[in-house]
Amino acid sequence: MRKSSALIHPVILCGGAGTRLWPASRECMPKQFARLVDLEQSTFQATMRRVAEPGLFARPTVIAAAESRFIVAEQLAQIGLPADIVLEPQGRDSAAAVAVAALHGARTDPEAIVLILAADHVIGDAEAFRRAVATAAAAARTGSIMTLGIEPTRPAADYGYIRRGAALSDDGGSRGPCAVERFVEKPDRAGAERLIAEGALWNSGYFLFRADTMLAELETFAPDVLAGARAALEAATTDLDFVRLDAAAFETIPKISIDYAVMERTGCAGVLPVSFAWSDVGTWDAVWSVLERDGDGNALRGRVEVIGTRNSLVHSEVEGLTTVVGLEDVVVVTTPDAVLVASKAQSGRVKELVGRLRAKAHPEADTHRRMYRPWGWYQRIDIGERFQVKRIMVTPGGRLSLQKHFHRAEHWVVVKGTAEVTLNERVALVHENEAIYLPIGSMHRLTNPGKIPLELIEVQVGSYTGEDDIIRVEDIYGR
Amino acid sequence: MRKSSALIHPVILCGGAGTRLWPASRECMPKQFARLVDLEQSTFQATMRRVAEPGLFARPTVIAAAESRFIVAEQLAQIGLPADIVLEPQGRDSAAAVAVAALHGARTDPEAIVLILAADHVIGDAEAFRRAVATAAAAARTGSIMTLGIEPTRPAADYGYIRRGAALSDDGGSRGPCAVERFVEKPDRAGAERLIAEGALWNSGYFLFRADTMLAELETFAPDVLAGARAALEAATTDLDFVRLDAAAFETIPKISIDYAVMERTGCAGVLPVSFAWSDVGTWDAVWSVLERDGDGNALRGRVEVIGTRNSLVHSEVEGLTTVVGLEDVVVVTTPDAVLVASKAQSGRVKELVGRLRAKAHPEADTHRRMYRPWGWYQRIDIGERFQVKRIMVTPGGRLSLQKHFHRAEHWVVVKGTAEVTLNERVALVHENEAIYLPIGSMHRLTNPGKIPLELIEVQVGSYTGEDDIIRVEDIYGR
Repeated sequence: MRKSSALIHPVILCGGAGTRLWPASRECMPKQFARLVDLEQSTFQATMRRVAEPGLFARPTVIAAAESRFIVAEQLAQIGLPADIVLEPQGRDSAAAVAVAALHGARTDPEAIVLILAADHVIGDAEAFRRAVATAAAAARTGSIMTLGIEPTRPAADYGYIRRGAALSDDGGSRGPCAVERFVEKPDRAGAERLIAEGALWNSGYFLFRADTMLAELETFAPDVLAGARAALEAATTDLDFVRLDAAAFETIPKISIDYAVMERTGCAGVLPVSFAWSDVGTWDAVWSVLERDGDGNALRGRVEVIGTRNSLVHSEVEGLTTVVGLEDVVVVTTPDAVLVASKAQSGRVKELVGRLRAKAHPEADTHRRMYRPWGWYQRIDIGERFQVKRIMVTPGGRLSLQKHFHRAEHWVVVKGTAEVTLNERVALVHENEAIYLPIGSMHRLTNPGKIPLELIEVQVGSYTGEDDIIRVEDIYGR
Repeated sequence: MRKSSALIHPVILCGGAGTRLWPASRECMPKQFARLVDLEQSTFQATMRRVAEPGLFARPTVIAAAESRFIVAEQLAQIGLPADIVLEPQGRDSAAAVAVAALHGARTDPEAIVLILAADHVIGDAEAFRRAVATAAAAARTGSIMTLGIEPTRPAADYGYIRRGAALSDDGGSRGPCAVERFVEKPDRAGAERLIAEGALWNSGYFLFRADTMLAELETFAPDVLAGARAALEAATTDLDFVRLDAAAFETIPKISIDYAVMERTGCAGVLPVSFAWSDVGTWDAVWSVLERDGDGNALRGRVEVIGTRNSLVHSEVEGLTTVVGLEDVVVVTTPDAVLVASKAQSGRVKELVGRLRAKAHPEADTHRRMYRPWGWYQRIDIGERFQVKRIMVTPGGRLSLQKHFHRAEHWVVVKGTAEVTLNERVALVHENEAIYLPIGSMHRLTNPGKIPLELIEVQVGSYTGEDDIIRVEDIYGR
């Protein structure tokens, strides 16, 4: 076992909305938390597991958007892995996050090795990944800011490239750590082919560095980013299990990527070529390409039937049937409130579609039908002129805020588990197949005092059933 | 005004499941009753309106499947047009229906002119249609069995053709009624081109004849069809407003089309060439081609957004969003429990898809999420391990059966209108925003005593929530 200071400190960046994977990925549930590639776990959870190797890695740090905090906590609890959770009040691009990561790592040890990971990548071979990280860490210990450079498998026009320079050590040769000669922006296809012929690598966005190395480079090339990050961390508050960066300080940080701010300017950039299967699953086309496919080249998930269809992805998250007849190279995604049908080749344009949906104020652009909350989730199942019906799930121990509504009464029918309902001065237990009525204006609170999830059907009746008709009097989650 | 016996007796055939227009059209709500082409009315309703011309047509007769009886009655009530409704206990193809139509017509007058119409066709110009019918009726009066032959507008391979023989009268020439030289089965494309060059017409499936002419031809060429139809009509019962053909007699009738049974064998066949816009909207491709389209050639209905998409049909019946990116010549149909994505060119294969769905026992093959009943409709909105939630609409005056369930309790929350609820010995009025609980095993009945539709949310809780857990003690609709 290495001594603690030799451990690598993983920092997982969880920002980003993943709009190109709409409608499965949306701002309220970005792709890193969705179960898109592996139906058993999100890519965030897979990333956490990849760095759960006590002999190699220290306790990870997760940097996430404040709105994602309950999803992060819930998904960590599901896999039973602990992490420090640092919340960004808003997205300020990757330089800010890397600066926070370096400062956070330096608190343990100025020479701590920090590994920056994206939460939304798919990597085929976790063992090969860890071997590569250990090799790159050795180069980082001598003062390089290392990246992992993926050996290209096709002339991709949607990745940045890295041209290798001289070897950093004698033993690896061109297979070992090299200096970076140049970072190249996303090329066109011909440019990509030329770069690959010259031995260039894909820029994976993984970085390894000694905290003090990165802090020195930030001081030189992006002092305002560093100053803002330092101030935001110093004035941070701790709220439940979260470290909340100070909003006022954080919003002074320029929005810039770590590539522009440091990597393209530093003299310390190094790259380790790696050849494990990797994808940033940025588009539905990319999702299709990492999934297992049947003899017709189709990846089919959920209740799906196809005839005469080839090389297509059909991903259903709904109870009903999704069917495809006589098509090739298409993507079909069905969710409870939105359906996407796209040509695989043009699936990158989904981002443009989401922009259009936002411009037209379609709520499906950003919010999911099922809304996750610290206490569980709710999902609208029907809506009419003067009513709305929701299914509500409360986790054991979960407790909604003490609240009231001005424009709607609510009927709750418990269909699973037991509810503890506060209604004005009364507290009652409501069991499966029992109902309770909450008149307009009454003060009420819902708690799951039991050991199994509580599920209930809520029928709201009134002249207005919007989410904003709520007065929260008390809330254990600090909302 | 002509005298009554000079009026034409329209008989609208409403059989057929229209599975090639799945998922909008299903056995429980076939395409002739769906609002696919015209969002304001079904093709059945449009057909009824086309023959609502008191100077030309007598009161129409509708021949429909027994299961469709409440839809037929409801759709007639919506448009305020009366009709005799004759119910087939099962589908026995068109010869049986035409025989019933001829016998039914002959009851008024043996020389009554009967017009057989399909309920699922789209005709552009109702006035031109009526002029053609009047012209063909004149030829029918002299003993011809007339069809309307559509002037082809493209070498369609999915229609039968009719080759014209000699003119039946001097005044029309080849534009007027002609003898039929030959009926030609659906040809291939080259065959269709040849037929069109020779002046052949599409076989529309409309027939006009004197009742006695058709009865004589049936006697000659299909005596068993005629005998079965006569027996079924003689033993028919009247049930509410419906004439129910006798099941035992009806099922003896051979399943054969009127084309095979009579038209291809009789010496009386005539055809009137017509050139109004006509489609049997047999496939989604055909639906697209009769709809209005935007500048990109798209027909978009419901909450739909598309980018980079051309010559496509997107038909949404759901509350959520349906989106298409970067595709051409596709059909996308979204309904609450099934989504179809098909290439327009292969949309005829939807029938094959439905066969596959039936083989796999997917309920969506034949039943809709919203189930129409004589008293209104219900729609499942959520289902879980031990519960199910439905939205139920009861029309004013509607009355469900007196019933009980062995495996589920029910909670009803009224969200619109007023319910009269019978619960064992008690009868109670339940108003908007009130709820009532029906314990397992209780005898109950739901009635809408009011003037506006009653809507309620039903939450079922129990170990089994299938439709077949119902004991009907009394039912005003004779179920």
